[in-house]
Amino acid sequence: MATLHGVWESIASRGLELLAKRGFGKAAPLMSVCRELLSERGEASGTALAREVSERYRAAAPKARELFLLGLLDKDFLPDPKVVTAAADQYRLRPDSETLAELVAVAEPRRQELFRRINLAPGGTGVVIEMRTDLLRMLPAHPALQSVDADIKHLLSSWFNRGFLHLERIDWNTPALVLEKLIEHEAVHAIDGWDDLRRRLASDRRCFAFFHPALPREPLIFIEVALTRGIASSIQALLDRDAPPMDARRADTAVFYSITNCLEGLRGISFGNFLIKQVVTELEGEKLNLRSFVTLSPMPGFRQWWTSLPEGRKSDVTEPALMRLAAQYLLVERKGDRALDPVAAFHLGNGATVEKIHFGGDRSEKGMAQSFGLMVSYGYRPSQLEKNHEAYVKQGRIAASSAVRALPKKSLK
Amino acid sequence: MATLHGVWESIASRGLELLAKRGFGKAAPLMSVCRELLSERGEASGTALAREVSERYRAAAPKARELFLLGLLDKDFLPDPKVVTAAADQYRLRPDSETLAELVAVAEPRRQELFRRINLAPGGTGVVIEMRTDLLRMLPAHPALQSVDADIKHLLSSWFNRGFLHLERIDWNTPALVLEKLIEHEAVHAIDGWDDLRRRLASDRRCFAFFHPALPREPLIFIEVALTRGIASSIQALLDRDAPPMDARRADTAVFYSITNCLEGLRGISFGNFLIKQVVTELEGEKLNLRSFVTLSPMPGFRQWWTSLPEGRKSDVTEPALMRLAAQYLLVERKGDRALDPVAAFHLGNGATVEKIHFGGDRSEKGMAQSFGLMVSYGYRPSQLEKNHEAYVKQGRIAASSAVRALPKKSLK
Amino acid sequence: MATLHGVWESIASRGLELLAKRGFGKAAPLMSVCRELLSERGEASGTALAREVSERYRAAAPKARELFLLGLLDKDFLPDPKVVTAAADQYRLRPDSETLAELVAVAEPRRQELFRRINLAPGGTGVVIEMRTDLLRMLPAHPALQSVDADIKHLLSSWFNRGFLHLERIDWNTPALVLEKLIEHEAVHAIDGWDDLRRRLASDRRCFAFFHPALPREPLIFIEVALTRGIASSIQALLDRDAPPMDARRADTAVFYSITNCLEGLRGISFGNFLIKQVVTELEGEKLNLRSFVTLSPMPGFRQWWTSLPEGRKSDVTEPALMRLAAQYLLVERKGDRALDPVAAFHLGNGATVEKIHFGGDRSEKGMAQSFGLMVSYGYRPSQLEKNHEAYVKQGRIAASSAVRALPKKSLK
Amino acid sequence: MATLHGVWESIASRGLELLAKRGFGKAAPLMSVCRELLSERGEASGTALAREVSERYRAAAPKARELFLLGLLDKDFLPDPKVVTAAADQYRLRPDSETLAELVAVAEPRRQELFRRINLAPGGTGVVIEMRTDLLRMLPAHPALQSVDADIKHLLSSWFNRGFLHLERIDWNTPALVLEKLIEHEAVHAIDGWDDLRRRLASDRRCFAFFHPALPREPLIFIEVALTRGIASSIQALLDRDAPPMDARRADTAVFYSITNCLEGLRGISFGNFLIKQVVTELEGEKLNLRSFVTLSPMPGFRQWWTSLPEGRKSDVTEPALMRLAAQYLLVERKGDRALDPVAAFHLGNGATVEKIHFGGDRSEKGMAQSFGLMVSYGYRPSQLEKNHEAYVKQGRIAASSAVRALPKKSLK
Repeated sequence: MATLHGVWESIASRGLELLAKRGFGKAAPLMSVCRELLSERGEASGTALAREVSERYRAAAPKARELFLLGLLDKDFLPDPKVVTAAADQYRLRPDSETLAELVAVAEPRRQELFRRINLAPGGTGVVIEMRTDLLRMLPAHPALQSVDADIKHLLSSWFNRGFLHLERIDWNTPALVLEKLIEHEAVHAIDGWDDLRRRLASDRRCFAFFHPALPREPLIFIEVALTRGIASSIQALLDRDAPPMDARRADTAVFYSITNCLEGLRGISFGNFLIKQVVTELEGEKLNLRSFVTLSPMPGFRQWWTSLPEGRKSDVTEPALMRLAAQYLLVERKGDRALDPVAAFHLGNGATVEKIHFGGDRSEKGMAQSFGLMVSYGYRPSQLEKNHEAYVKQGRIAASSAVRALPKKSLK
Repeated sequence: MATLHGVWESIASRGLELLAKRGFGKAAPLMSVCRELLSERGEASGTALAREVSERYRAAAPKARELFLLGLLDKDFLPDPKVVTAAADQYRLRPDSETLAELVAVAEPRRQELFRRINLAPGGTGVVIEMRTDLLRMLPAHPALQSVDADIKHLLSSWFNRGFLHLERIDWNTPALVLEKLIEHEAVHAIDGWDDLRRRLASDRRCFAFFHPALPREPLIFIEVALTRGIASSIQALLDRDAPPMDARRADTAVFYSITNCLEGLRGISFGNFLIKQVVTELEGEKLNLRSFVTLSPMPGFRQWWTSLPEGRKSDVTEPALMRLAAQYLLVERKGDRALDPVAAFHLGNGATVEKIHFGGDRSEKGMAQSFGLMVSYGYRPSQLEKNHEAYVKQGRIAASSAVRALPKKSLK
Repeated sequence: MATLHGVWESIASRGLELLAKRGFGKAAPLMSVCRELLSERGEASGTALAREVSERYRAAAPKARELFLLGLLDKDFLPDPKVVTAAADQYRLRPDSETLAELVAVAEPRRQELFRRINLAPGGTGVVIEMRTDLLRMLPAHPALQSVDADIKHLLSSWFNRGFLHLERIDWNTPALVLEKLIEHEAVHAIDGWDDLRRRLASDRRCFAFFHPALPREPLIFIEVALTRGIASSIQALLDRDAPPMDARRADTAVFYSITNCLEGLRGISFGNFLIKQVVTELEGEKLNLRSFVTLSPMPGFRQWWTSLPEGRKSDVTEPALMRLAAQYLLVERKGDRALDPVAAFHLGNGATVEKIHFGGDRSEKGMAQSFGLMVSYGYRPSQLEKNHEAYVKQGRIAASSAVRALPKKSLK
Repeated sequence: MATLHGVWESIASRGLELLAKRGFGKAAPLMSVCRELLSERGEASGTALAREVSERYRAAAPKARELFLLGLLDKDFLPDPKVVTAAADQYRLRPDSETLAELVAVAEPRRQELFRRINLAPGGTGVVIEMRTDLLRMLPAHPALQSVDADIKHLLSSWFNRGFLHLERIDWNTPALVLEKLIEHEAVHAIDGWDDLRRRLASDRRCFAFFHPALPREPLIFIEVALTRGIASSIQALLDRDAPPMDARRADTAVFYSITNCLEGLRGISFGNFLIKQVVTELEGEKLNLRSFVTLSPMPGFRQWWTSLPEGRKSDVTEPALMRLAAQYLLVERKGDRALDPVAAFHLGNGATVEKIHFGGDRSEKGMAQSFGLMVSYGYRPSQLEKNHEAYVKQGRIAASSAVRALPKKSLK
């Protein structure tokens, strides 16, 4: 950190010429408007200054943004160490609610207030999210920014509290502006243009997204659902854009086949579990005949894990052998307390059940490379989620259907 | 604090009988649902538990609420002092952005997370505000709750950031549910039923309120405006409900005659200055012929200040004498750096100008008691607000019209 | 008609002086703008001229409006009799679809096109309705206006086709502007101010209205419903504004206790039957526990009929005697093919059943005067409406509950 | 007509077998539900029966629809000739407002009431429009249907009165469902998929459509506008989807380059003139710097007219020669009282001015074939529209800019 902080200081001392070369020419006024925004003047003209910060940030070149964000490490944006230390001493003497309140109050970095004031501008929330997007990209090269990220994430967690989000159905009635964002962001199973999208929004499909009131046309996260008879066993079949839509009332299963976070700047502020559960509730509210709610999920770490197995166990790549190994991978393998597979860890953490393993579930290149084409369905049964979650978190017990449970018995000794 | 904390502990030990007598029977399960909400289970079933907390709190008797809020002082809702002290030590050794981030992270009281989770429930934001309303009422008797209030206020300041509020015009098209709240909350110049309200929303009146998306039918703060020719010189004339509405296009002045905060639980989270400024902008946007924007405001502390004057100066209660004293009171008297009169301090802090003093401005009993019936108009001139604000805050200079400035010259030696 | 038409012509000849005295000064330009609106110029500047007609009509004094409406009898607004007669001759020779189409086309009075063009103005629909309101008031004195009324009613029937109306729930969330109209129009059981209204919109009450897209804040007709346990037997009990609201889920009966047409200018364009039926559907859609849908209706003609009975039958005004006579009045007495009582005729025409007669149902002065305080409940059972309607219309059969049916048996020989 | 009517009767007598072969199997029940809808039962169960008619019609094969529409010529849907003739006789004796009203009332074909009742169904308005679409397609082969069309058009003119339409801006925020219809219907300058559409909705473009409340997602007519500096002289330049969008505030001209009717079933019910005028008003309302409003229009009949010229005049196809001929074609040539070119006739009838002729305005194959690539700009100057319209309609005077006016002088002797 000292080093990085030093970077900023030395930059400041090397004069304007160099700064201009590194794109700092644009960061400097941005920074000075920020300081004004935090000053008395900011209290009288907050909105105007916030708007200026927003516009300048949006217009700034990548390098200027980078220098600006590094500038937030400056000690001006931190509290006076003497004051913090004094409050800490009081707390040490009498560690109670009051002394703690004082410590917390004086320790808050001023840049938190800066972010709050930027939000006064129309569109300010979006700018703060963009700042974090940039920050996250810089973290590997500038680990000291972790502390700035902690501040900004703290604020965004508070603003994007689930209680402020609303669920919206996405369909062909949705503004093109929003639909375009689905095409742009869907990374799990890329949407190949408007015709592909239209099929994914047909009468036997459902799509839902969370929105925040300050970002009305910006889906934060969205989920794609297919209504089917029986659990679809292959993603390619589901995505076939020429398949005629089925009458939704004939479906007995809702298959959640893709869930996508749209805003990188909200990374780590999790909505996915809320989204799946609320969508189950929404679908139950429609007068359909759905009896099960399952995912069709990848096993992104399966093949890598398989590679690490002793040679003897890898020779057999027939369906039965792979199915058994997949069951072992999902039900037995752990990373710490959690399931080894990250997707499994997410769904099991939500209280879902390992419902079914699909051989040939994803025959795409990526699917073959990740998991020999195997996919998994996790089941969401509203009445069991809480119990499963607790058993998983507290005792490491993984819920699985009897079919899946039957598989590993044969292979694990 | 030790004492109050002790109250809770001793209560806990005295057993159920006593608790039931003091209404604790209802606080205990509320508290235990809160603890669950903060636990692992809360992660899986957050929304359901949050809903339960909300419902229980709403249903709880005043005594039960009180005990519950005192319960938030419990050390379970505070961080482990050893951890905080250790982080403070690290910070002391190397006081930088990183060690600070760590200190801030570990020092956050767990009840903050509790409040955030309560917000998962539909209507949860309203419950958190209600908790603070109750807290504020308890503060005089339980000063230790100041620390709980600090936590809850911190969160509400973040949630009710101006950037998340939207301004709405209130008129006869507004839902009765909202209008009823104006009648309920207006405290400055009470609204005497629906007919009175209707006159205040007639074609030569304007009313605006700030709303938050999580509280869609709940005005946070509202302002009442009369469109007049010249500055109205008496509040009674403005409020005459039998006065026929004037054609708004004939008006040259907008008189802001009342501004009301509706939610006690948001006390200290200020929107008033934003509201006035944005309403000026709104009114400029209407195609009217307005040339000045002024308030018609009370001087709540004038008579009390007058009482403290030396006898000699008080004998003369004629109009000229009172006008001169009022000018001195507004332009000269100070409480610290700010104007002595609290209403003056608010408007001058916003950058307004002391525009005019009205003799006989408020002939009501309250008006006579507060200020011998005198009222003040503060002028809001968009182009001067920033400059006035800075001059006031930094140099203590108070902006005033030449007419008002002329008054005290005669009396101040 | 010749006479009335003559009135207009003689007025026209008596010169401006007289006209001005009779308020015609304002009708003349209104009429001339109307003629322009129908001319070529109207095609280019239709909207502007229509707006002028609207504004002038709204501003016109009653006398000016009257003269204007009489002016619509002028032969300029009628087709050329020669052309109509010639088309009629063609039709007589060969009465087919084509010759009829020609006859219909040439026979349309030009004032129909005038009304259509007035509708080009914003708010024009409202002006046309107002014209009809005025027309209807004039009819008794000017029966020739019947023909103008026929034209305007023809158009309004087309515009206010049920397919263009939408049902809206009215509650405390409804704009005050709309609620005020309920207070203004409710004639059956007058609403005594905002507090009374509020009780009628409480959680155990429902209110619905039909709206037309061109009149967005104007309820056309509204219905008030009370959710009760058992059929409420007295309107006074229902309207008691101090009765605490019941939990709606405990109700088993929806009592439709008032239905009000708001716009006199739509008289004879019936929505009432659609409204009741759609409200039954809406209520079935709410997840309540309602099992029956009944009215609580007056018998406006009962006492008058009773007065006409032979003396012998009138001596007994005890409950049993009046109940028996009421049953006879409802089930037996006829006016032509229809039930004698107009309210009965309306509900039976809708396919409803005479469900119950309430002694002491309306103890108000009006109730006693109309029907000795008796009221009736008509039952709306969705599955039987069609069958009942047909039996009533074709065979004059009146559906009644066995309880009601049992009553007259005793008295009718 | 007798013949066609006979077709229906003979069909009816040839029995079911034949009918089934011709697809009548589906028309018969449709027709019988229609008859029920017109009967007493229709009064009680109108909405349900109307829904059935709607669904059956939508599901019917083209042949079944055709037979059904022919069935509307049946005398059951016409009034009793005796009654009509009697009313005509009364009218002949005393041709006044009253006897006319009676004649009009009895002469109305019953199918008008049928169409009105079909409108009771949700989506019924759309079905009536679809019926007319089918009718119009059948007219050439079945001219007797002209009378049915007259009835249905009469009704639709009344329902789609301009006063009931609302203008909506179409942009990237518009639901995909609506945007898709633009792609589908735009016939003048076809939209080549979503990317092309997106450019047409960029920040230097505007698009507006009229909607009817009963068809909320169905644009009736839409207009495409380009904001440019100077009058764009070529449609290909305007439609270049790779051209970067200009800052709209830099534009001084709004070019209306395409206007499209979407619903064939509303043919002859004109909205185009209202649309252009209202869009001019909308654009004036935006705070842009527009100074002229012009079209960029084809001359669809130019080349055909040119072909009919004497040989001598056709040899010269240079720019000056074609420009002169175009001016003659636009300003001099007539078809009856109107301009020969149909597009010119439309805009001149609206009161527009021939502003500019563009050589090479449309270099597409179609443009070359229609008009040697020439296009015309008609200017819409709000203050002159009315005057121009009258001069055109009454005296046949065509408004033209001096530049255009200068052209023909050279060539016309």
